[in-house]
Amino acid sequence: MKTLNDYIEKLNKLNFKGMYNSDFFLTWEKSDDELEALFTIADALRFMRENNISTKVFESGLGVSLFRDNSTRTRFSFTSASKLLGLEVQDLDEGKSQVAHGETVRETSNMISFMADVIGIRDDMYIGKGNAYMREVSDAVKQGNKDGILEQRPTLVNLQCDIDHPTQSMADMLHIIHEFGGVENLKGKKIAMSWAYSPSYGKPLSVPQGIVGLMTRMGMDVVLAHPDGYEIMSDVEEVAKANAAKSGGSFTKTNSMEEAFRDADIVYPKSWAPFVAMEKRTELYGNGDFDGIKALEKELLAQNAEHKDWACTEEMMKLTKAGKATYMHCLPADITGVSCEEGEVDASVFDRYRIPLYKQASYKPYIIAAMILLSKFENPQATLKTLEKVAKQRKFD
Amino acid sequence: MKTLNDYIEKLNKLNFKGMYNSDFFLTWEKSDDELEALFTIADALRFMRENNISTKVFESGLGVSLFRDNSTRTRFSFTSASKLLGLEVQDLDEGKSQVAHGETVRETSNMISFMADVIGIRDDMYIGKGNAYMREVSDAVKQGNKDGILEQRPTLVNLQCDIDHPTQSMADMLHIIHEFGGVENLKGKKIAMSWAYSPSYGKPLSVPQGIVGLMTRMGMDVVLAHPDGYEIMSDVEEVAKANAAKSGGSFTKTNSMEEAFRDADIVYPKSWAPFVAMEKRTELYGNGDFDGIKALEKELLAQNAEHKDWACTEEMMKLTKAGKATYMHCLPADITGVSCEEGEVDASVFDRYRIPLYKQASYKPYIIAAMILLSKFENPQATLKTLEKVAKQRKFD
Amino acid sequence: MKTLNDYIEKLNKLNFKGMYNSDFFLTWEKSDDELEALFTIADALRFMRENNISTKVFESGLGVSLFRDNSTRTRFSFTSASKLLGLEVQDLDEGKSQVAHGETVRETSNMISFMADVIGIRDDMYIGKGNAYMREVSDAVKQGNKDGILEQRPTLVNLQCDIDHPTQSMADMLHIIHEFGGVENLKGKKIAMSWAYSPSYGKPLSVPQGIVGLMTRMGMDVVLAHPDGYEIMSDVEEVAKANAAKSGGSFTKTNSMEEAFRDADIVYPKSWAPFVAMEKRTELYGNGDFDGIKALEKELLAQNAEHKDWACTEEMMKLTKAGKATYMHCLPADITGVSCEEGEVDASVFDRYRIPLYKQASYKPYIIAAMILLSKFENPQATLKTLEKVAKQRKFD
Repeated sequence: MKTLNDYIEKLNKLNFKGMYNSDFFLTWEKSDDELEALFTIADALRFMRENNISTKVFESGLGVSLFRDNSTRTRFSFTSASKLLGLEVQDLDEGKSQVAHGETVRETSNMISFMADVIGIRDDMYIGKGNAYMREVSDAVKQGNKDGILEQRPTLVNLQCDIDHPTQSMADMLHIIHEFGGVENLKGKKIAMSWAYSPSYGKPLSVPQGIVGLMTRMGMDVVLAHPDGYEIMSDVEEVAKANAAKSGGSFTKTNSMEEAFRDADIVYPKSWAPFVAMEKRTELYGNGDFDGIKALEKELLAQNAEHKDWACTEEMMKLTKAGKATYMHCLPADITGVSCEEGEVDASVFDRYRIPLYKQASYKPYIIAAMILLSKFENPQATLKTLEKVAKQRKFD
Repeated sequence: MKTLNDYIEKLNKLNFKGMYNSDFFLTWEKSDDELEALFTIADALRFMRENNISTKVFESGLGVSLFRDNSTRTRFSFTSASKLLGLEVQDLDEGKSQVAHGETVRETSNMISFMADVIGIRDDMYIGKGNAYMREVSDAVKQGNKDGILEQRPTLVNLQCDIDHPTQSMADMLHIIHEFGGVENLKGKKIAMSWAYSPSYGKPLSVPQGIVGLMTRMGMDVVLAHPDGYEIMSDVEEVAKANAAKSGGSFTKTNSMEEAFRDADIVYPKSWAPFVAMEKRTELYGNGDFDGIKALEKELLAQNAEHKDWACTEEMMKLTKAGKATYMHCLPADITGVSCEEGEVDASVFDRYRIPLYKQASYKPYIIAAMILLSKFENPQATLKTLEKVAKQRKFD
Repeated sequence: MKTLNDYIEKLNKLNFKGMYNSDFFLTWEKSDDELEALFTIADALRFMRENNISTKVFESGLGVSLFRDNSTRTRFSFTSASKLLGLEVQDLDEGKSQVAHGETVRETSNMISFMADVIGIRDDMYIGKGNAYMREVSDAVKQGNKDGILEQRPTLVNLQCDIDHPTQSMADMLHIIHEFGGVENLKGKKIAMSWAYSPSYGKPLSVPQGIVGLMTRMGMDVVLAHPDGYEIMSDVEEVAKANAAKSGGSFTKTNSMEEAFRDADIVYPKSWAPFVAMEKRTELYGNGDFDGIKALEKELLAQNAEHKDWACTEEMMKLTKAGKATYMHCLPADITGVSCEEGEVDASVFDRYRIPLYKQASYKPYIIAAMILLSKFENPQATLKTLEKVAKQRKFD
């Protein structure tokens, strides 16, 4: 695409009315048109930034972030996206401000939102909790807006929960759309979402779940591979099955990494913890059973150690389509001999794919900004047109 | 009011010259006209925001915050207010930067202020310290400006000290002005500022002190109720008495919550620590006597436990005017059966008043923004007019 | 100078093409013209701010800060500078985000830079590490930009490393240029960069190193004074010698504070740790030998205590030119009887020089802003002209 108008015309053909004034919790709650609109806006924002056209649609306003887990890249992506649109970020640091549950969630959600246009939350630590918490916050501010407490209704953006990691999977998808020269070229392509060994034990399930929940919509042949016992959330598997049936793709499971990699166009090897173990951990945590958690961790590490052969080695890569599948990772990866003794991927494989991997990550700020823009602006085509007409420079010339 | 001009005309009738280039420490240091101007500016800013008119009066500049106590809502209010006017917030985190006393206060105050337009401080932990510290900072930057070190003089905003909590009491007042349909309707109304039981022991005195120090100016009948031994700072009682005499209202004290609630138009039941105990605590802290502090806390908790009947129950509410007094709280409240076993207020009472309570809190960012605007702009009427004329949208349309 | 055009004309006479798209690591990597351009831009930005002309050259963008040591003044200077140009600051807090070495530096540097225009780093704790780390980050983002990962290339600003502290020394220099009425008046002036006793043991070497590495370029007679055993990095001494030879000034060393102060026009008495001790400390730290570090600290404190007579007393000041040398310090100083029992400077000396000392510090935000501007804008004269023509007010009028 060459002009902003190309993006606008594409938007004109899509029905994404449902995005206005909505939240972004799970990709499978959105229609195909809505996701395509989101990709289009993300590309348009990138196009504008690369052409030094300001995309500041807010003169003032806040983006509130809440990270219940350490984060560098998602934090910077959220800040970058907010600032790109003109919002200042105020972090709700629970260490400083004690956010609890129930009544307190409702109250705090309103108290931080008097001038908030968006709330981004990362809460991926406990099964059954993160997504539920986000919805609780969203309900509170929606009600606050209805009750006349909040002048505007802040949009909620899921920056990673126990179920999905939509800003990751959407950035991943936008990356391969560009790598393969268009979403239409993804049809019939084989992608292997595979477990891989890592010396750490409890990596979130939201990445593999997000990937199979999204990639199955594009007519791709999605293979989920993991050792026996490393099952993901069954609800998401059902989503993937239904998606595949609808899109004309497929969703299969295997306990063989080799089978998954064979003739794959794309591989996404990554460690995660078994869903049932994470459920158990959540229960232990709820009971304050910290000895139980320690025992569980030990058990999981031992279980992991039996599967050190699940690694994205040079030999494994040779199995893929022409030995040249696109290698993906959400980063940071556990690189054998670099960040750990034995890990998810060989150093030589990682090295060869570093540039596209970094590019993959570069889409996240634009995806987040597009989520905000689509929720806050009823007619984004008009918004983009006006921005182009005003033609304010991002960086003074 | 319907147009911005209505606010401007109101301002034209008031004398608030003293606000320009001044700090906001205590409400009782300000004239009636000055407070009315502040309420008017706060309303005008809200009006403009609700009508999508940008109120960004700074292209760049800093709002510096210093919180010597945990804070969510005041932190977000200060950030919201700063951003509303175009200032970026930089927090002075003492954990990261060690602010001490004496020479260091003078130096640090200047070092953080080379481009600071406002400094907001919360320092409510020790009697005789917080307000004094704020004045020390203010003196330092005033002198720095005179000496040609600081190009501009940052305004100091008291975000809660040991004596007053002006951003809270002013927001509370603006709320009831709107609830009762105008400040003139508050004349003769009875407000009960009452102690209430909470399982925690050392809540700041600045809220009850701020309330009796401000509400007595509006011709209201202000009743301060608490168990024997829970006296507030006597200096503030003197302020309240003098205010009442001047405004034609009254200021009375009682050791009976029932008496205070009877026929009250407004009730504000809230826990606080006895002033003398807090003075003792400050002394113990000064001597580094941490065992003494622990003993004192234990003693205070035992004393509190004798007054669990001081609670805003449904029965108590029935005593109020038609059983329907406005219930106020600075939040978060200790709600019986919700946030604690026995607390300041019944869950059913709190629930019934939740919406107005949240609205009460929503005024704080506007109050803070009005404090900044009145101090930094000599002719705010002209400033508002120009903003309206420029008519830049807060949120792109 | 009276008009912005004066600054622009001065810039027209200078060759500073090398600054565009470059980093600022060490002053001695920059040409005389480049440093003069930097001073000129800093003065121009100050002139504009003092005349209420907006210097916002970015509509959006990030300034990323990374402080590996506590910091108040440098943190605020970086935030002030960034905001002055329109950049929002996002701090990379390692406590929150674990920045390690090698592969991770490359990856993290790119991940935080998708929308970053500048990265400011303070890393002064370990010899041989800080400056090397900054260059590693810079190399990573330069490569990222070449590889098409980063749309723009963030500029790196050294906010203090193990070798130099260029934002400090440049601010110090700009201060004395103004104090002495022009850089030409510094020729032949004697400046004593002297060690002074402090009760703390390991103050960074970057200040004395930065001072002798910069001041020797202005034709000044630079005397480095310290007790035997408190040598600075020998590489920097070589830089100072070469500078002096070229500029027609001199660089001498002495173990007598009196000799350094005698007839000095400027004195800069300040504590630092011996270079060899800091090298040893870095080695111990690398080996995880924390007992060794403790023993070293004890040893250094004992060594320091032998030199309590190295203090900037009233008597010492009498030795200086007419008893009225300019007293400089990077602040905070250890003031005898104020911040410590025995320290670097007498309280009466410090008091007499407080105003110029604070002014000295006030240049830092402008120096940082000038570093950013010169690196991001190829033709800063045109940029300044346009800013003047647009004439947007910083603070609404």
